[in-house]
Amino acid sequence: MRLVTAIILLVLAVSCAKNEAGNGLQHPNLILTAQGVSLMRSSLGKVPLFDQSVEEAKQAVQSEMELGIEVPIPKDLAGGYTHERHKANYFAMQKAGVLFQITGEEKYAIYIRDMLLAYAEMWPTIGKHPAERSYARGKLFWQCLNDANWLVYTSQAYDCIYDWLDEETRIKLNKELFRPYAEYVSVENPQFFNRIHNHSTWGNAAVGMIGLVMNDEELVDWALYGLDLEVPGDFVKDNDGGAIQLEGQKEAGFLAQIDHSFSPDGYYTEGPYYQRYAMYPFLIFAQALANKKPELGILNYRNGLLTKAVYALINQTNAQGEFFPINDAQKGMSLASRELVNAVSMAYHYGGQDAGLLSIIKSQGRVPLNDSGLDAAKGVADQEVVKFPYKSIELRDGADGTEGAIGILRSKSLTLVMKYAKHGMGHGHFDRLGFLLYDEKGEVIQDYGSARWVNIEHKDGGGYLKENHSWAKETIAHNTLVVNKDSHFDGKVDEAEKSSGVPYFFSATPSVHVVSAKEPKAYKDVELQRTMAVVDIAELEHPLVIDLFSAQAPVGTRFDLPLYYKGEFMASNQQFSANNNLAPMGEESGYQHLWAESQAKLKNDLLQITWFNNQRFYTATSVIEDGDEAILTRIGANDPNFNLRRDPGLIHRRKSGNTLFASVYEIHGSYDYATERPLNLFSSISHLTVLHQSADYAAIELTLESGATYQFTFSLNDDSKASNHSISTSKGKIEWSGVYQFIKTEK
Amino acid sequence: MRLVTAIILLVLAVSCAKNEAGNGLQHPNLILTAQGVSLMRSSLGKVPLFDQSVEEAKQAVQSEMELGIEVPIPKDLAGGYTHERHKANYFAMQKAGVLFQITGEEKYAIYIRDMLLAYAEMWPTIGKHPAERSYARGKLFWQCLNDANWLVYTSQAYDCIYDWLDEETRIKLNKELFRPYAEYVSVENPQFFNRIHNHSTWGNAAVGMIGLVMNDEELVDWALYGLDLEVPGDFVKDNDGGAIQLEGQKEAGFLAQIDHSFSPDGYYTEGPYYQRYAMYPFLIFAQALANKKPELGILNYRNGLLTKAVYALINQTNAQGEFFPINDAQKGMSLASRELVNAVSMAYHYGGQDAGLLSIIKSQGRVPLNDSGLDAAKGVADQEVVKFPYKSIELRDGADGTEGAIGILRSKSLTLVMKYAKHGMGHGHFDRLGFLLYDEKGEVIQDYGSARWVNIEHKDGGGYLKENHSWAKETIAHNTLVVNKDSHFDGKVDEAEKSSGVPYFFSATPSVHVVSAKEPKAYKDVELQRTMAVVDIAELEHPLVIDLFSAQAPVGTRFDLPLYYKGEFMASNQQFSANNNLAPMGEESGYQHLWAESQAKLKNDLLQITWFNNQRFYTATSVIEDGDEAILTRIGANDPNFNLRRDPGLIHRRKSGNTLFASVYEIHGSYDYATERPLNLFSSISHLTVLHQSADYAAIELTLESGATYQFTFSLNDDSKASNHSISTSKGKIEWSGVYQFIKTEK
Repeated sequence: MRLVTAIILLVLAVSCAKNEAGNGLQHPNLILTAQGVSLMRSSLGKVPLFDQSVEEAKQAVQSEMELGIEVPIPKDLAGGYTHERHKANYFAMQKAGVLFQITGEEKYAIYIRDMLLAYAEMWPTIGKHPAERSYARGKLFWQCLNDANWLVYTSQAYDCIYDWLDEETRIKLNKELFRPYAEYVSVENPQFFNRIHNHSTWGNAAVGMIGLVMNDEELVDWALYGLDLEVPGDFVKDNDGGAIQLEGQKEAGFLAQIDHSFSPDGYYTEGPYYQRYAMYPFLIFAQALANKKPELGILNYRNGLLTKAVYALINQTNAQGEFFPINDAQKGMSLASRELVNAVSMAYHYGGQDAGLLSIIKSQGRVPLNDSGLDAAKGVADQEVVKFPYKSIELRDGADGTEGAIGILRSKSLTLVMKYAKHGMGHGHFDRLGFLLYDEKGEVIQDYGSARWVNIEHKDGGGYLKENHSWAKETIAHNTLVVNKDSHFDGKVDEAEKSSGVPYFFSATPSVHVVSAKEPKAYKDVELQRTMAVVDIAELEHPLVIDLFSAQAPVGTRFDLPLYYKGEFMASNQQFSANNNLAPMGEESGYQHLWAESQAKLKNDLLQITWFNNQRFYTATSVIEDGDEAILTRIGANDPNFNLRRDPGLIHRRKSGNTLFASVYEIHGSYDYATERPLNLFSSISHLTVLHQSADYAAIELTLESGATYQFTFSLNDDSKASNHSISTSKGKIEWSGVYQFIKTEK
Repeated sequence: MRLVTAIILLVLAVSCAKNEAGNGLQHPNLILTAQGVSLMRSSLGKVPLFDQSVEEAKQAVQSEMELGIEVPIPKDLAGGYTHERHKANYFAMQKAGVLFQITGEEKYAIYIRDMLLAYAEMWPTIGKHPAERSYARGKLFWQCLNDANWLVYTSQAYDCIYDWLDEETRIKLNKELFRPYAEYVSVENPQFFNRIHNHSTWGNAAVGMIGLVMNDEELVDWALYGLDLEVPGDFVKDNDGGAIQLEGQKEAGFLAQIDHSFSPDGYYTEGPYYQRYAMYPFLIFAQALANKKPELGILNYRNGLLTKAVYALINQTNAQGEFFPINDAQKGMSLASRELVNAVSMAYHYGGQDAGLLSIIKSQGRVPLNDSGLDAAKGVADQEVVKFPYKSIELRDGADGTEGAIGILRSKSLTLVMKYAKHGMGHGHFDRLGFLLYDEKGEVIQDYGSARWVNIEHKDGGGYLKENHSWAKETIAHNTLVVNKDSHFDGKVDEAEKSSGVPYFFSATPSVHVVSAKEPKAYKDVELQRTMAVVDIAELEHPLVIDLFSAQAPVGTRFDLPLYYKGEFMASNQQFSANNNLAPMGEESGYQHLWAESQAKLKNDLLQITWFNNQRFYTATSVIEDGDEAILTRIGANDPNFNLRRDPGLIHRRKSGNTLFASVYEIHGSYDYATERPLNLFSSISHLTVLHQSADYAAIELTLESGATYQFTFSLNDDSKASNHSISTSKGKIEWSGVYQFIKTEK
């Protein structure tokens, strides 16, 4: 018995050795290559992060192997047993394949083979998944998307044992499992495969990768160029309300996905949460194409767009490496995800070994088990690891970069994000000109994110909750202006998709960072423009945020400007009167989910509230106009299943025509629970005045407690750097050239 | 000029050297000693933690010295400028004194001298502090307590420069500042000085320490033995409602404080938050007495009670080193506080160099600059640091240990605290038989703590908020039984002070930890007994908590049992109906601060709710009786200034006579935001049944999803280990001997 094993291992070793010396057409040649495997083997024990990742993979696969081969008849939704089992299977197979190549231990190959044979056994016996909620039902899973996931991972495993398998088994698997599987997620479901959408990217990659493994050029063609098939007319929308066919869409397939999914800056219109998810098939298939079809030059496609997209993702994170939760997004998803572990190492390896990426790779604490991962792990071991150079950046949206953008301002430990991009398709939120603010400790002004607990069965199976639609997507759930109690575009995705926000100005000097954008179409007869600046002022501990929201609107328009501050309300300069009975603030557009806890008719010049979070103080100061009101809100009304967090907010309400909401946001002071000593717990702002507001200009003056006074003046309609401006104000005439001026005028 | 400085430094060096060779009666001899200073100097550069603490002290003093001498006329409350300035001054002087001794740099001595002369200048010119809210107004501060703080720290500084000062200055300071100051906080305010209370401990220590420095035996006698003075009859209560004179109180002074403040286990009836605060004067004065009056044997007093008290404090912390927030307590106060930095090092040095303390000292990251601190820092440097051996422990309350207790159960990463101690004087809460639950990540079932933001001026000057009384102290704010909507003892401190909870049983084996206590007097005609067990069950990830709350009460009694779970509500097995308009739940006893968000008339056998926090799931499962209701609550009604956190709760409501509330609490599963994969997100409990309930016994049966079944049976009135018990149940007769039995009955 032992002798037999020894002989098998010997044969295996010879076979592996043969591969190493092969011509590149032998397997593995998808993600792993013979040359790469050879280098990995010789590096074992020498590159800590790589060794550690190998060790983790071994442990993960070991515990799966101990469970034995479990291939249950599909039944459950995400979070349920059969769903999670099939998902665990493909992760385990992918890892086992790599381990087989790296260690030469046949147990891994046997595990994969037996698992695949079990799938081959089951495949012809099952029909569509019993759950009927998807526009494209899978067979193993409730949606084709997950079936495609399975194939993307499993084709990597298959590639790793392809040459090891006997021919009979190989032919059986190709014919009875993989080709029919690939057909199912493509020609049998064109409404899934032929879209320009992250679902289809997975589908394209899945079919393309198995095609590359089997040398099935037809599949590879489908994957690259899409199907020459009409999508049946009964598929119009997916489950999220996204269109199956984009207006004027003429292409499909992987290359079209790259063309249409990303802007030239690598921004993905659905936002970073979905981009993260989509990046894995983009990059893994690209890696396979780079190995097997170098003539395509896929990594240079559109000026190296796929690498740019990785950088775009990195730029869309806070200090904890968590993605900005714009559009539908569960908070907490981060650079630590498996998709980014693959993506960042790949960007390092194929993108010129940028040392700035090493700090991220190091904090990820693991690397993918392939050429990229080995290279990245070596980089971490050999080089001084410097922090990724985050900086202010505008990421344009739209395939050609002309459909809006997001502006990210970074100054010291402060990060501000303003969104004036496209709607983001079915996962978009009605949040034009909304913003998010972070300091290095976390959220300061939050975006709600999606109303969803991903994969948590208690919460409607882990899918989107109905409050995602009724609350999280609505305008009032965001830090942006609500006009006449209605969401942007009346809450209609189709309308929102027709236009994007309009970038107006973006500039960053070391001490003044400015973004300004317009939104002319969210509301009929209303022109909105928001200008935000992050200014570093010598007198203050942290940079200060200036927020000038201009609206040109008919007289009598009602404006609600919410501010979802994070933390405990400390105090206000205004007299709020609390409600002892709470009723929902409205019946629709998200207002039905808000309680008004307290309100104030605003008096004097300023509205100021201070809150406390993470052992720090924060103050928002806003200029008020006669008749303004403020409401302290709490999320949670009409929420029978406790799907929403009970988070607080402040709404600044104004009835007006053309107007300007002028505010500044301060981060200040500290509090230590062990010393109980507060520092700098009050705002440093003593006055904030609007010096001028018109359709063409917005100007404010800011006075600190110290007496120091600053002016910020901004040209709303002339973005020429050369123009000279002059406005009359209560402080006399102010003149400047260029779009804005920020100056100290006193002390 | 330089020559003069050099000569002064030379003289100083000689004078310091003389001290070192002194007879122990020369200064410093209060906290520092000549011998200790000599050792510190020779250890510089050799003991990292000590060096680091010296460095931090230097930086702190340096930045204070740069400010110059600021001794403003007293005006503000805590948090305000003059208050915080005088407080910063005494901390700076104390540190400067030590640095003068360690470094010999005269700048430190000059700083202290000049500061003291400024105080001596001001003292005769000021009367009582202008703020009138204290029962014992100070002069520098709004209350004598803070004046005493000042003197405790400043006498240490004074001791350090005493011999360095010229005689004229010394006499001036003794006569014009320190003696009158000491008289002010003692004979002029006996209602402050002569109590058995933490305020007086500070007063005693302050007067005693300055007495020791000045060799003023009269002051030392006052400090040790109290004043032979009647407290004027118009002082009956302090600002917190605490009695000025305890019933039958015949003694006062420091020794009486030790006698009366602590139980024989070192428990302090006001709870750990105030014990932490009180420990500093106890220990620092004891240290001074040990140095200057060794004949008193203060550290052996009551079998080394002061050291025991430090251990009691350590035992009253969660995994983050934060004190259990029982009674009035701000959450977050911890072993990191300066008081504990002093206390733990001192316990190490004087208490036999217990290596278990070194892990705490190490995590504190600094040591006091004295003999104890040097010894502790050496311990950390030289020894292997092992974790402090936390274990289940009952800490008795009352001077002779017969007035209730708190029970702390620890099993793996779980910590449960049940309180059945005395009321805790003016800072006590009406929380008999209440409990708190932690896992290693933090709070699972929370105690609200106090309604206060200590020193944060926005919040009513940083003092106790009125919601502390109307909410935080009331029974409904705690995890314990509320009978007929009234707080324990009708919310009257005087009544509550007359009795304590009654310890009944406490036992800890490796896998079963049990505490049981009775409360016969909180409500008329109602006998309460709570029995909690933490059991380690092979089938579960974490230990399970069993909670059996028995009540013997008249028929028709209404019981509300709240559970303040920490986190986001996930799901319940019961059908809750949410309220779209919220009204306060009542008008008094704390109910006026609760919103009922949702309620259910309970059906079938069990009430189960699952919540999510810190990436983990938690489930509470309770047996229900016909007619039971459940209410999902939210704190925040009648809270016009947003002084309360909007935390959730669950109230289990029952109308009954004699009854048993039987519940179990599970910690289970996990969720990772980067993988979005939940594990074990459902409860493992399939059945929970009350097998028996009577005035004498409580018995439950617990069945897991695996089928495994456990029984817990408990004798409520016979705590003999030898007794045999037999009860009839639906599962037949169950027999056991001893107070309880926990057995597996199936699988």
